[in-house]
Amino acid sequence: MAKISIQPRTYLYPMPAVLVGALVNGKATYVTIAYCGIVQRLPPMISVASNKAHYTNIGIRENRTFSVNIASEEMAQVTDYVGIYSGKTTDKSTLFENFFGTLKTAPMIQECPLNLECRLVQTVDVSGGNDIFIGEIVGVYAEEKYLTNGAPDVNKIRPLIFSMPDNHYWKFGDCLGPAWSIGKSFQPGQK
Amino acid sequence: MAKISIQPRTYLYPMPAVLVGALVNGKATYVTIAYCGIVQRLPPMISVASNKAHYTNIGIRENRTFSVNIASEEMAQVTDYVGIYSGKTTDKSTLFENFFGTLKTAPMIQECPLNLECRLVQTVDVSGGNDIFIGEIVGVYAEEKYLTNGAPDVNKIRPLIFSMPDNHYWKFGDCLGPAWSIGKSFQPGQK
Repeated sequence: MAKISIQPRTYLYPMPAVLVGALVNGKATYVTIAYCGIVQRLPPMISVASNKAHYTNIGIRENRTFSVNIASEEMAQVTDYVGIYSGKTTDKSTLFENFFGTLKTAPMIQECPLNLECRLVQTVDVSGGNDIFIGEIVGVYAEEKYLTNGAPDVNKIRPLIFSMPDNHYWKFGDCLGPAWSIGKSFQPGQK
Repeated sequence: MAKISIQPRTYLYPMPAVLVGALVNGKATYVTIAYCGIVQRLPPMISVASNKAHYTNIGIRENRTFSVNIASEEMAQVTDYVGIYSGKTTDKSTLFENFFGTLKTAPMIQECPLNLECRLVQTVDVSGGNDIFIGEIVGVYAEEKYLTNGAPDVNKIRPLIFSMPDNHYWKFGDCLGPAWSIGKSFQPGQK
């Protein structure tokens, strides 16, 4: 079947739905972000793109720290709540049990199965509406029950997935196989 | 239960597993990338972080164009194949049916349900091993069967998901509900 050209929009599948945290006026605040991706393995770095008008950005710029909190399936509703209401008018400091790591100014969410504590390395500006924050992940926190052999286990974390333009949250599905492995038996030409 | 601190690594859930394409020495080549995220809504921009030694990077730097091809569940094996073998020694130009859009130098994969054609806007260097390419999505291509009301439909695309550090491919799972909606009935304090 022939391909057709459609309107260029931000169609990447899957997207995460993470809770990004910062300290603004001494209080923890959070924003729900789908525009987020890993940019480097070592030292580990992550990019978070957030509208310049977002309240959370104030704290990221000021403290040069932020957190990326992985929400679980059970947290879909509160994750959406955080994304709907702005920190300008809604106090999100009591929404979760907050904790801090070595950076002291990046509030993290106890209820999230996994927390990435980040030091701002660079802010990229592509002359658009977003701050593109690149952070080094300097701390990772989790309860033992979400780990296998000391590392995060996606099957225990059960993270949220986001999709656009339908704007829905999804669960992880079935496993399709291991990387750097299932491709070894692929025969070019079989397509 | 108390959180414990684990080694900081690139733990973001979910990650995509996309096929990034470029033209090197006049031939299409592709690399499998999980370090990829949206950075801006309008104009739509995406970041792709790829090891500087990758063969595909040569074409992205030279032509200042690339493609991001969304692989489907059925393409797990070939996606892994593309990630295992380098374009330096493996000719990937015949692996798929290639096509080109308006940029002329960003090869795309007919077999992928969705193709993003990108013009390189900026390359970010955080003094690590990766080129962090930020591209504007100038074209999006799909067959009608992957669309609903003219826009991509994740349930028809059935994209691959990737996870680390276990390094496995996964399917999309069940829907948890609509964004900017399910949070409206959340009652702070219910946690």
